Amino acid sequence: MNKTKMWKLGILVLIPLIIFLIPPPEGLPLIGWRLFGLYLTAIVGLVIKPYSEPVILLGTVAASAVTIGNTPLPENMVLKPDAVLSGYQSGTTWLVFAAFTLSAAFVTTGLGKRIAYHLIDRMANTTLKLGYVTAFLDLLIAPATPSNTARAGGIVFPIMNSVANALGSDPVTNPRRAGHYLMLNVYMVTKSTSYMFLTAMAPNALALSMMAPILKINLSWGQWALAAAVPGLICLLLTPLVIYFCYPPELKKVNNKEIAAKGLKELGPMKVSEKLLLVIFLMALGGWIFSKYLRIDAATVALCVMACTLIINVVSWDDVLKNKGGWNTLIWYGGIIGLSATLTKAGFFKWLADVLQTTLQFGDHSTIALLVILFISVAIRYLFASGGAYVAAMVPVFATVGHVAGANPMLLALGLLFSNAYGGCMTHYGGAAAPIIFGAGYNDTKSWWIVGAIIGFGSLLVHCTIGLAWWEFLISKGYISLATTLVR
Amino acid sequence: MNKTKMWKLGILVLIPLIIFLIPPPEGLPLIGWRLFGLYLTAIVGLVIKPYSEPVILLGTVAASAVTIGNTPLPENMVLKPDAVLSGYQSGTTWLVFAAFTLSAAFVTTGLGKRIAYHLIDRMANTTLKLGYVTAFLDLLIAPATPSNTARAGGIVFPIMNSVANALGSDPVTNPRRAGHYLMLNVYMVTKSTSYMFLTAMAPNALALSMMAPILKINLSWGQWALAAAVPGLICLLLTPLVIYFCYPPELKKVNNKEIAAKGLKELGPMKVSEKLLLVIFLMALGGWIFSKYLRIDAATVALCVMACTLIINVVSWDDVLKNKGGWNTLIWYGGIIGLSATLTKAGFFKWLADVLQTTLQFGDHSTIALLVILFISVAIRYLFASGGAYVAAMVPVFATVGHVAGANPMLLALGLLFSNAYGGCMTHYGGAAAPIIFGAGYNDTKSWWIVGAIIGFGSLLVHCTIGLAWWEFLISKGYISLATTLVR
Repeated sequence: MNKTKMWKLGILVLIPLIIFLIPPPEGLPLIGWRLFGLYLTAIVGLVIKPYSEPVILLGTVAASAVTIGNTPLPENMVLKPDAVLSGYQSGTTWLVFAAFTLSAAFVTTGLGKRIAYHLIDRMANTTLKLGYVTAFLDLLIAPATPSNTARAGGIVFPIMNSVANALGSDPVTNPRRAGHYLMLNVYMVTKSTSYMFLTAMAPNALALSMMAPILKINLSWGQWALAAAVPGLICLLLTPLVIYFCYPPELKKVNNKEIAAKGLKELGPMKVSEKLLLVIFLMALGGWIFSKYLRIDAATVALCVMACTLIINVVSWDDVLKNKGGWNTLIWYGGIIGLSATLTKAGFFKWLADVLQTTLQFGDHSTIALLVILFISVAIRYLFASGGAYVAAMVPVFATVGHVAGANPMLLALGLLFSNAYGGCMTHYGGAAAPIIFGAGYNDTKSWWIVGAIIGFGSLLVHCTIGLAWWEFLISKGYISLATTLVR
Repeated sequence: MNKTKMWKLGILVLIPLIIFLIPPPEGLPLIGWRLFGLYLTAIVGLVIKPYSEPVILLGTVAASAVTIGNTPLPENMVLKPDAVLSGYQSGTTWLVFAAFTLSAAFVTTGLGKRIAYHLIDRMANTTLKLGYVTAFLDLLIAPATPSNTARAGGIVFPIMNSVANALGSDPVTNPRRAGHYLMLNVYMVTKSTSYMFLTAMAPNALALSMMAPILKINLSWGQWALAAAVPGLICLLLTPLVIYFCYPPELKKVNNKEIAAKGLKELGPMKVSEKLLLVIFLMALGGWIFSKYLRIDAATVALCVMACTLIINVVSWDDVLKNKGGWNTLIWYGGIIGLSATLTKAGFFKWLADVLQTTLQFGDHSTIALLVILFISVAIRYLFASGGAYVAAMVPVFATVGHVAGANPMLLALGLLFSNAYGGCMTHYGGAAAPIIFGAGYNDTKSWWIVGAIIGFGSLLVHCTIGLAWWEFLISKGYISLATTLVR
């Protein structure tokens, strides 16, 4: 173990130790205080990363279970050690895990690439249009690819990388010819499509499940897509153009027919597995859109879809076993969801809200509070290298503060759920696909951060104006409403 | 997809279809009947295996969730689709998954081999004593190696295989010189140690968690070990000797010093990771034995131990990701436990008990019923290629029938929990390690089945005589008692 790791581990041991030694603040039961200490440890661990996420979570989950068994509970509280494992029963965890299989299938079958080359063939005779093809392609497969690594990193990036190469743009000698523009665009576009569907990015479901008990809201897959559609499409349509103006590629015209023909030739004729995947993809979409009428929730749809892909052998179980991203996500999402649910049960967030209520005085300025929270939710992303860590650390806090400030819970929820995705575009470490794309070598930090800030804060502006108006309209028409009963 | 697979898949589709078309028997709610159809599908799937276990379970879990959402529930029943995911919150699932990490660590660090060679060096100057060293070694590491594949297949088998080789016994030319005896012994011994600790075989915890709600019993790690100790040690001590008499190896004397020296030289000096694993192993044992005083359950101990091995880097997270057996078990155990719990909630086992109560007439012969059930539980194992499939299919049925017959629930539980392990010794496909050992080529089916029958039914005899007496003694002294509250 090297020195840095030792230091980081030391910090993670100290946090709970110190909190366990300090008596709990007034109004918070001892168990809530101690569990908060361990939750804080998990969050700090996710940020400073002495170990990978699953290890951090397994450690804090185990410690939390021991703590529950060894801390006296208030008389009216029932809390069992296995409560911290509740995240592994959560539909959220299984939704993400199951949809990862579908993400992987788009990569392994080659269907994603095939769609891409067809789009290039039809539409992309300029570099700008290549940018729009990227946006359209990403949007098309986003509903079934919550793994950004699979979608942007595994499908869109490799194609645009080889296109840049075919256009004679080299990372060292002439990145600005085409690659610089195309790569930036791949990332910025995927951060916009990521909030357009519940299933377009893994942390979406995580954020929703953490916010739901605090704000007493719920959203179906269809409601999510509806709310995101207007601000999302506007941002998505503007993105390739804005980047084009900021850093215009030297090459304007593209011989798209040649590129597409070569790519399609390499793929060969359409395989049975691709056709089957197409059917399954449409089934998944149908399931999510019509889940209300089918009487199944989004997680069950994802499970059915996963089972189907395995049964008709579009993906083999061995492929699933090898898909490390899926297992990592299963373990650490399940862990953090369980910890957060336990913390809620132990009365922590209620206590936090009570404290904030007496200390923060927003008066009648609940809308200003909402806007300030959304601004901070984007700006703070410069500090987070992982969307998941941001969700675990900040979403419950933002939700509680906004709730106390009297902001409309649904507007607050939608604002935060969406900024969770586009907030990640601002840095070259803001999302899982970023290092892959940045690693291609076409881009420099400065231009990435400049474009990232423009797209990030630009999206914020769109969401705080047109977005808020659209959501208020949807609420007023009853398309979206505060749920009376919570679906876990 | 080949023809056999198509046929098998057809059967699995037909089973729920037929059951869904038939109206439910009197007294069983529609939802209980339909869920039973899917549970039956899972069991048949586990037996005929058109796919690996996790795929079968993911499919039936998804179908059960859809069924719950689309079947009218009786007025007094609350059942949500995510109930079928409850197995993934179950301590049983996590106990097994976490302990798999420890199993793997014994193999990867080389600690298992080192202990083996030291034992050979000290004790094994004849082939019979080699048999006893095998038994002792297996018993020593059994408490922390629920993966039979890791313990027998990954540690004990490779050593005894190379010992047989060093003794000049070849699978083709002269298997009877030593290999035939040593290999048979490795397998029979591991089937005896497998029931001596809750954590010595993966299906143990599974069987307990399926039996507990039906028989209203519970067992701690320590109570399990105590109950198994007397019959287990007797069987374990007899096993090497019995096989020795049935098929005496031609070679009697062994140059153990030379074999041990060579093996230890290959291992080199003891590594830090081995020392750390030894400490962790002792911690795990301590945790399980004193769990009552530490106020933590066996699953939490296993989680803590897993977290420790990862944090001090005895096992890396990447090793865990590569350990396919662990993930397979997590998915399919969690699935079957969830299905079984849902079936219980839907009133199926209560209904089954009511029906059996009126049709089966045991009168005052509850002890005979107990003995008959135990006999069948062993004999039926000729039909099952997997211990897990046997547990899922038969354990709930045996428990229900025994309960109805008025057998002492704790005697019935202990009898079934233990026969679950030694019942697997009868065939060369009875447990996960069997194909590995049989595959070495020293053994033929006939001698394996003869010895298996002797050890299997011999163990049954010991358990039905000395075992029953010992358990009755423990119950009368209050060391083991029927739990008033159930720990899930």
